[in-house]
Amino acid sequence: MEVGGKKLTVQEAKPEAFDGLDIALFAAEGAIAKALAPEAVKRGCLVLDKSSAFRMDPTIPLVVPEINLEATRSHRGIIASPNCSTAIALMGLYPLHQLFGVKRAFFATYQSVSGTGADAIDELEAQTQAYAKGEALTKKVYPYQIFQNVIPHIDSFGGDGYTGEETKMREESRKIMGLPALKVSATCVRVPVVRAHSVAVNAEFERPVDLAAARQALAAFPGASLLDDPANKVYPTPLDFSRQVKCGVGRLRHDTALDNGLAFWVSGDNLWKGAALNSIQIAEAMIKAGIPLKAK
Amino acid sequence: MEVGGKKLTVQEAKPEAFDGLDIALFAAEGAIAKALAPEAVKRGCLVLDKSSAFRMDPTIPLVVPEINLEATRSHRGIIASPNCSTAIALMGLYPLHQLFGVKRAFFATYQSVSGTGADAIDELEAQTQAYAKGEALTKKVYPYQIFQNVIPHIDSFGGDGYTGEETKMREESRKIMGLPALKVSATCVRVPVVRAHSVAVNAEFERPVDLAAARQALAAFPGASLLDDPANKVYPTPLDFSRQVKCGVGRLRHDTALDNGLAFWVSGDNLWKGAALNSIQIAEAMIKAGIPLKAK
Repeated sequence: MEVGGKKLTVQEAKPEAFDGLDIALFAAEGAIAKALAPEAVKRGCLVLDKSSAFRMDPTIPLVVPEINLEATRSHRGIIASPNCSTAIALMGLYPLHQLFGVKRAFFATYQSVSGTGADAIDELEAQTQAYAKGEALTKKVYPYQIFQNVIPHIDSFGGDGYTGEETKMREESRKIMGLPALKVSATCVRVPVVRAHSVAVNAEFERPVDLAAARQALAAFPGASLLDDPANKVYPTPLDFSRQVKCGVGRLRHDTALDNGLAFWVSGDNLWKGAALNSIQIAEAMIKAGIPLKAK
Repeated sequence: MEVGGKKLTVQEAKPEAFDGLDIALFAAEGAIAKALAPEAVKRGCLVLDKSSAFRMDPTIPLVVPEINLEATRSHRGIIASPNCSTAIALMGLYPLHQLFGVKRAFFATYQSVSGTGADAIDELEAQTQAYAKGEALTKKVYPYQIFQNVIPHIDSFGGDGYTGEETKMREESRKIMGLPALKVSATCVRVPVVRAHSVAVNAEFERPVDLAAARQALAAFPGASLLDDPANKVYPTPLDFSRQVKCGVGRLRHDTALDNGLAFWVSGDNLWKGAALNSIQIAEAMIKAGIPLKAK
């Protein structure tokens, strides 16, 4: 495979493939991660896993390096990377939490089809092309047409009526920020966007909020890019935050339904900060901080 | 103009045009409504106005007939019809309020381009066709590309950081339901959908909520169609609720971030229930209830 002008050899991931490696970036399904991660660990390799397989395991750190890099110090060979929407939403919520102490958050997401995978990008593309030609639209990946539609359904439904994606946003936010009692309610929605997810957030805090301090904290936070000048139409959109390292935060305002509340909007690249980039950032930050890659 | 096989004459709306009419359905901009509605009233004609010009005037009823038809009894010649997203959201929220008493609501909207007008439908269509041909996309109506993008900006921004659309959802919900102290926070977002708006709602109630009773109330409510069987992928989408008289309500669940809370999803036709249909329904309901069309 040619990547960035270099020829790379793609091999089947067998246990022996991890011999002699320091770090493995896992970006496969949960079942593959569960089968192969212990094999890599056995061979002294640090696994940075993007799947949901290990995220809620209390013995495994779930890490966004701008938030809880310190959690990597206790790793036993596997470090999990969070759900895409969670990582993106927290790039706005966490710096505000540091200032005011978050108690409760409502998330409504606008998630791109690339979060589903390459076949979903193909499906939106095929529906778009069919529409433009006046042909009938077909579907296979999503239960409903995604072109010129939105679908309030990501991942499978649990008994409480929330989807897996919505439950992940709650549980992973709690674990990453170290707030087991944090109240979270999410509604996760697929939109006909190719890349980058957006999240509308309403958050309630312990202490009175100050907009100037909040903006300052967001502007200074390494994972966020503050785009918040609505009078001049400056706010993030997913198109502008595709292929961006930082997540865009804007539309910051006092929440009219909460005491000590803020409403805001975040857009970020689900394939970068929401996936592989976060794993790479964990490795880089551990090396920079001198945190051992080898499990204790 | 030919409409439904009938030839209709389109005339410029001059004051004299209202002579001898019982009802005028106004579907023009606020400035036109303000100039012509008093002229119609002067001639004994009932004005059902779709613009935002009169909605928050305390002397003018703002009406969704399934909710507050009784408010029309005090009309002085003008009755206002609400903002599209508000009317649609309330088709889910109001029957739940009747059961449990709503205290607070969070709205995140997914609004179609037809809410902006015909030129916005044309813009999405032109961007779609240009994309399919591999040509450059141009924009004029929206500040950002709307094709394969979402824009968290509808109407102009107020000093509090909320847009006019978001403020309308708060103020109009209060007036229509007769709840001046209701807490509402809305985030209004344009999505690349042609027709029908959707709203993700988190609502807190005075009394404990019961899902079975909530579903029963929604199923019985004349403005709602309950589509709530997520295990079988049954929930509303905007595509399915385009050109539908009722609004679809689904994804009903106990809210994990609120005591006595419910989360749910509503999709409804912004051009029908969110606009002209509601005005027609007001007229029909008044006539059926024997409420005088003539102002006192």
